[in-house]
Amino acid sequence: MAKVAIIMGSKSDFNVVKPAVTVLESFGVEVTVRVISAHRTPEDAHAFAASAIENGYEVLICAAGKAAHLGGVMAAFTTLPVIGLPVKTDMMGGLDSLLSIVQMPSGIPVATVGVNGGENAGLLAAQILGIKYADIAQKLKDYKNKMEEKIHNDDAALNEELKGVR
Amino acid sequence: MAKVAIIMGSKSDFNVVKPAVTVLESFGVEVTVRVISAHRTPEDAHAFAASAIENGYEVLICAAGKAAHLGGVMAAFTTLPVIGLPVKTDMMGGLDSLLSIVQMPSGIPVATVGVNGGENAGLLAAQILGIKYADIAQKLKDYKNKMEEKIHNDDAALNEELKGVR
Amino acid sequence: MAKVAIIMGSKSDFNVVKPAVTVLESFGVEVTVRVISAHRTPEDAHAFAASAIENGYEVLICAAGKAAHLGGVMAAFTTLPVIGLPVKTDMMGGLDSLLSIVQMPSGIPVATVGVNGGENAGLLAAQILGIKYADIAQKLKDYKNKMEEKIHNDDAALNEELKGVR
Amino acid sequence: MAKVAIIMGSKSDFNVVKPAVTVLESFGVEVTVRVISAHRTPEDAHAFAASAIENGYEVLICAAGKAAHLGGVMAAFTTLPVIGLPVKTDMMGGLDSLLSIVQMPSGIPVATVGVNGGENAGLLAAQILGIKYADIAQKLKDYKNKMEEKIHNDDAALNEELKGVR
Amino acid sequence: MAKVAIIMGSKSDFNVVKPAVTVLESFGVEVTVRVISAHRTPEDAHAFAASAIENGYEVLICAAGKAAHLGGVMAAFTTLPVIGLPVKTDMMGGLDSLLSIVQMPSGIPVATVGVNGGENAGLLAAQILGIKYADIAQKLKDYKNKMEEKIHNDDAALNEELKGVR
Amino acid sequence: MAKVAIIMGSKSDFNVVKPAVTVLESFGVEVTVRVISAHRTPEDAHAFAASAIENGYEVLICAAGKAAHLGGVMAAFTTLPVIGLPVKTDMMGGLDSLLSIVQMPSGIPVATVGVNGGENAGLLAAQILGIKYADIAQKLKDYKNKMEEKIHNDDAALNEELKGVR
Amino acid sequence: MAKVAIIMGSKSDFNVVKPAVTVLESFGVEVTVRVISAHRTPEDAHAFAASAIENGYEVLICAAGKAAHLGGVMAAFTTLPVIGLPVKTDMMGGLDSLLSIVQMPSGIPVATVGVNGGENAGLLAAQILGIKYADIAQKLKDYKNKMEEKIHNDDAALNEELKGVR
Amino acid sequence: MAKVAIIMGSKSDFNVVKPAVTVLESFGVEVTVRVISAHRTPEDAHAFAASAIENGYEVLICAAGKAAHLGGVMAAFTTLPVIGLPVKTDMMGGLDSLLSIVQMPSGIPVATVGVNGGENAGLLAAQILGIKYADIAQKLKDYKNKMEEKIHNDDAALNEELKGVR
Repeated sequence: MAKVAIIMGSKSDFNVVKPAVTVLESFGVEVTVRVISAHRTPEDAHAFAASAIENGYEVLICAAGKAAHLGGVMAAFTTLPVIGLPVKTDMMGGLDSLLSIVQMPSGIPVATVGVNGGENAGLLAAQILGIKYADIAQKLKDYKNKMEEKIHNDDAALNEELKGVR
Repeated sequence: MAKVAIIMGSKSDFNVVKPAVTVLESFGVEVTVRVISAHRTPEDAHAFAASAIENGYEVLICAAGKAAHLGGVMAAFTTLPVIGLPVKTDMMGGLDSLLSIVQMPSGIPVATVGVNGGENAGLLAAQILGIKYADIAQKLKDYKNKMEEKIHNDDAALNEELKGVR
Repeated sequence: MAKVAIIMGSKSDFNVVKPAVTVLESFGVEVTVRVISAHRTPEDAHAFAASAIENGYEVLICAAGKAAHLGGVMAAFTTLPVIGLPVKTDMMGGLDSLLSIVQMPSGIPVATVGVNGGENAGLLAAQILGIKYADIAQKLKDYKNKMEEKIHNDDAALNEELKGVR
Repeated sequence: MAKVAIIMGSKSDFNVVKPAVTVLESFGVEVTVRVISAHRTPEDAHAFAASAIENGYEVLICAAGKAAHLGGVMAAFTTLPVIGLPVKTDMMGGLDSLLSIVQMPSGIPVATVGVNGGENAGLLAAQILGIKYADIAQKLKDYKNKMEEKIHNDDAALNEELKGVR
Repeated sequence: MAKVAIIMGSKSDFNVVKPAVTVLESFGVEVTVRVISAHRTPEDAHAFAASAIENGYEVLICAAGKAAHLGGVMAAFTTLPVIGLPVKTDMMGGLDSLLSIVQMPSGIPVATVGVNGGENAGLLAAQILGIKYADIAQKLKDYKNKMEEKIHNDDAALNEELKGVR
Repeated sequence: MAKVAIIMGSKSDFNVVKPAVTVLESFGVEVTVRVISAHRTPEDAHAFAASAIENGYEVLICAAGKAAHLGGVMAAFTTLPVIGLPVKTDMMGGLDSLLSIVQMPSGIPVATVGVNGGENAGLLAAQILGIKYADIAQKLKDYKNKMEEKIHNDDAALNEELKGVR
Repeated sequence: MAKVAIIMGSKSDFNVVKPAVTVLESFGVEVTVRVISAHRTPEDAHAFAASAIENGYEVLICAAGKAAHLGGVMAAFTTLPVIGLPVKTDMMGGLDSLLSIVQMPSGIPVATVGVNGGENAGLLAAQILGIKYADIAQKLKDYKNKMEEKIHNDDAALNEELKGVR
Repeated sequence: MAKVAIIMGSKSDFNVVKPAVTVLESFGVEVTVRVISAHRTPEDAHAFAASAIENGYEVLICAAGKAAHLGGVMAAFTTLPVIGLPVKTDMMGGLDSLLSIVQMPSGIPVATVGVNGGENAGLLAAQILGIKYADIAQKLKDYKNKMEEKIHNDDAALNEELKGVR
């Protein structure tokens, strides 16, 4: 069974992280959720990252805000793909979080999704797992189909509403 | 053998893309390099993305600049992980490229690396493949070790130089 | 009768799009309103854009937020003028939407209006139609006159209010 | 014969404007090129805009940099579509020019293209004319085909070059 | 008696403009308040600016938001000092208004104050008048003294409050 | 005779300041040029500002870059109008200088011109003096006329050049 | 006993400053809290800074917003370490305050913490004092341990909550 | 003897760091210069920071660019004051480096200086040491005096030059 760890720098980030948990669990992925701070519990961060492969994790998702170092710090200790999830802040809508995560120096990539993009972080983890697990790849196709269907329904519903108005 | 496609929106982006080609080929990954434009050859983009799985690709890297839609357009047609590589522009050093790639709406993630981060795009692709191919995972560890060694050498060299000066 | 299509990437964008619908319908333009996502229903997007001319559309208005690719994706499949309407986001007030729409690469323009500029998107469509349809050109002049009158009234009203205060 | 005016705020902007001239003339459009400043020759700006329709113009392209008011000032005096072409500056790569042009208040749209997007300004003018002039619409299709062909050639050329290297 | 005109692009800007009115009237300056739009009533803008000197005005204050052209448009028609007051918007807190006003091309300065800086716009007008009218210069000194006193009082009050807490 | 002081924070800012000197001297204004640093010679800054009125100055121009405090520091010690001239830096083209100068708190305005806007700083000083000195007001009108003439000449020259090309 | 002065430009900044007071007093540091404005009471600012060393202060914390000159102005008059605390504003979340404080010219550093980072300003002052006062260094270690413990508790609590949900 | 460590993330940052070395050594401070990468040699970073106190260091200066985590990573392992020195990049002149360093979450401050502010990083370290070492405090006063003298000389020299010109 595929296993993903979702780590957040502060418990208050959980609302941002939650859609990632939901989508991954709906795909049958085992999800570990942790509060580990790059700066307040750095040894935990290193220990977790350094042992992630032997503990069976295949993808790490790291959510943090402001000077968001968590993704980079974890990536420094593992060769697993690390997904960086920037949390919205008051500084230009989270541009600080985004730049602190995405602008990693050569050698240590962090796969960054949009600010507060919890669902996308989960889906990206699933896409990565999907190259190895056929059932997850299939579930991604189903998910894509459902999104398409939802847009079709929204389109029909909006035009139904407009008919009433016009 | 693992297979990655690297697509750029314009032939002039090749210098940004090149380090990704180099690092992936050095890891024994088969790399296809293509110039496909989301806007000038949209049908090629869709055809490539829609058939990427059956053609054996496992990761797509998409490099583009300015209103950089290539990654998103490819991601719309596949469930493979798509890595977005923003190309530097004159608009705030490529912030336009970065935001056009990373700020994807829910449902269609693009795994974004830093502006002009060709090497990191290649390494991220390798990390993704590494969860399936043990030899690539091993090569990533070797790569990490070499980077560590290089920093050690730089540290020693700098201190040697400074000794002469002081 | 002149015909315009207004497409939004998500049903939730309708409040931004609505003033465009209102202004165009008040000018006697036939307006089609659609929810089509560049990423979630890309084939619909392409089909709509590719057949827009033969279906009698003369201008397309595309509203989207964040990494807003809808306008560019539609423009890739048609030679009709495409108006891009950036939707406000939390990222610097919609700078992500704006840059993703306006910074199109050479060859595929998108005529961009301001963030949440629904009324201006509608007026710009009318101005474009006005070069062909004399009645629309006339209605634009009337609209301009009404705006002028409104400012005159506001000016008088404010000075009336101030008289009371002073 | 279709007629477009291209106005720049300063003679030094001509290099940005030139691709618009070239593309429009290659489409058989009659192009008037003028240096008119919104701030240094405001009466000329108003006179030109106010008489543009009776002088047979159907689209105006206005290029300016920094606090770029030219497009808005012209748009205030005409109901013709006005295309705003922001010129690159030292301030964040032309963000000042872009925002001064695109963020027009409700009622007076300016159809904005990307910073230094001269070619796109010309093409957008052609697309607008194309809803009235069938030959221009046809030439736009040919232009699109040539762009597609160029990308195909670039793709082939790059792969040829890479073959030599590998 | 010194005379200042305060012009706003939209009646809704009055709350931003009000502190300028208040401060100038408290200094005995005659203030004319007008709603004139650079884009919706451009002829009024020009007429007002072009006749400002003969009508006895000595300073113009122009408040506007977004692509805020009012100050520049007025400055084009007069040699009086024009103060630009950028109104806060959703775009990065009014950076669009600020850049549209302050980044004027060479030859036509607009004296810009901070975003929503109504009081400072009024004070700056008073400082300008103060080089000619000795009583206004004196009132500015009194104003400065009152500000100093207020800070002293705030300092004392805060320390009083803290004493209670500690 | 009207008297203006132009102060720069560093001798290296002189090239930015020079056009202000030139334009003011050409208008017959007496100009004092000083290098005074708000941070390195703060007592000189205060002494200069505090005695500016009694020394006959009527306007101060303060040029500085980065965390540009000079204008604000001078304005704290005088009721004369202080013009702030932001010097271009590597940080977003001088956005740091601009914001440090223009965003003054209520009570202490600094009349800000665009980044590197030396000529405009000089012209703004002249406009301020012009409300008191009729000859300067007249020279500003002449200057405006010459600018208009230059644009006319540029327009004619460009069209002459284009005639040769076409 | 170690002594720190915390100065704010406006009484309304006290809520931002408060965590600095709290943390320093909990470490046994004597804290002086003052409202002193760089622009409204500049002489107080200079007097305070110039006599800070002889009055026994060892660190100054200066909180201010917008064109935040307080830190720089104080630093100009003392060789003590000055900590700059940028206060959040409407301009891009306080980017104006941040750049006005951190981008100091060579020779006069201000030790800048994040926007609204009151607690960090206090902790940084403690770290500076800690190189001299062993008891403060010890308290910083205890503080670090408590932060670590809090993260451990948050991590446990979150996983407890999730157990209930799953 | 006071001891400071200056750590840079990459040997190529040495030119930015050099002025810090120079100024500190000129003050008689013992300086250790190291190349240690938060991401490529994270264990060295931790080891260095964790043992910095017992190795006699009193201040750490950390220079890094882009997603600049070095300062934060070091600060996580020590209670010494850590100075963060952002290195200029192509992304908005180093705004990425600055935000990644200064926007630290509560609990772990990094004392940030301006982009490429090597001299200021060194001076800030000296100011911190100056609260403990009287000779360094004295040297800072001398340094301040020399800066003042240099401005006086620049002022005199500029006026001498101008005399020749006028």
